[in-house]
Amino acid sequence: MSFAARAYVALLHHPVLEKTGRVVTTAVTNLDVHDIARASKTYGLAGYFVVTPIAAQRKLVEEIIGHWTTGAGREHEGRRTDALELVRVAPALEDAVSAVRASCGGTAPALVATGARPRGGVVGYRPLRSEREADPGPTLLLFGTGWGLAESVFQAADRILAPISGAPARPGQGEYNHLSVRAAVAIVLDRLFGRYE
Amino acid sequence: MSFAARAYVALLHHPVLEKTGRVVTTAVTNLDVHDIARASKTYGLAGYFVVTPIAAQRKLVEEIIGHWTTGAGREHEGRRTDALELVRVAPALEDAVSAVRASCGGTAPALVATGARPRGGVVGYRPLRSEREADPGPTLLLFGTGWGLAESVFQAADRILAPISGAPARPGQGEYNHLSVRAAVAIVLDRLFGRYE
Repeated sequence: MSFAARAYVALLHHPVLEKTGRVVTTAVTNLDVHDIARASKTYGLAGYFVVTPIAAQRKLVEEIIGHWTTGAGREHEGRRTDALELVRVAPALEDAVSAVRASCGGTAPALVATGARPRGGVVGYRPLRSEREADPGPTLLLFGTGWGLAESVFQAADRILAPISGAPARPGQGEYNHLSVRAAVAIVLDRLFGRYE
Repeated sequence: MSFAARAYVALLHHPVLEKTGRVVTTAVTNLDVHDIARASKTYGLAGYFVVTPIAAQRKLVEEIIGHWTTGAGREHEGRRTDALELVRVAPALEDAVSAVRASCGGTAPALVATGARPRGGVVGYRPLRSEREADPGPTLLLFGTGWGLAESVFQAADRILAPISGAPARPGQGEYNHLSVRAAVAIVLDRLFGRYE
């Protein structure tokens, strides 16, 4: 089974940072559900977890999925249905980990955290790809909403991916990286799973 | 000047296809303005044109830009301001071409069309990157909303980029590629301008 076919994305709405650095719970964004499901499907991933501790938000996500997988949406656009069938909700990261483990014969996933800020001990995209292609177990890629994943998630991760580095915002300034999480997921999946000339 | 610093994105809302293949004008999506501006800024591009023949829609985009570059948004999030300063509106592709030419000492940009469907005569990402790095002129990357750019845009283009190829939707089926245009822009910019291990 290919690396992609045993890889999962988790989009965390908690614990994540707000602008000031405080740990908060963010609200689910409808387009994050759609765009990340479509990217996950395009690269052949096994699943996409929307993680939020707020029950009403999980219900909202399930209603979006339901519309497109059983409702009027299925007839309108079958490709959207194929993508949203990948989406699952989870109250916490541990629940997503348990679900992956259950789907993969009891093998826990390697947790790979992502973030926009520079930090030590990160792994590059090509080295991670080689490593996870060689390991038969599942991979769970962790993305944070808001101002990014809380430190506790980085501490719990097995690997931390290098940030996507941007150009300097102005001459002499540091690198600019202010991608939306939707764009960051698309780029990370392409770097790990994409093939092109 | 680097390839990125003389490259521009144009997001066309006309002429593009709807689901049935008819040529239509789509509505501007707020998040397309933001996400594509942020990705363009991250990769150090020179500008991002939102192209629509509808005057009220251009006014809407200008109001979004105004909020973030002169209004309350500037104080809230300076990085968002830096990104939205790249955005310009144009009624038609020709107007975007003229604006690029005026910004680049009279040199017309190479027009590079993108699309999700397989077609002949396409160029790969690495070959295009080499070609445009070697050529001192500007590049205008064309993306379509809706169901993609109309045939007339492909006919007018100097180069057509290979589609982003996906995994088969189901065993035995053709490749699945149903990325949002926001995700497609992020991936194309990363393939052309990104640097990573």
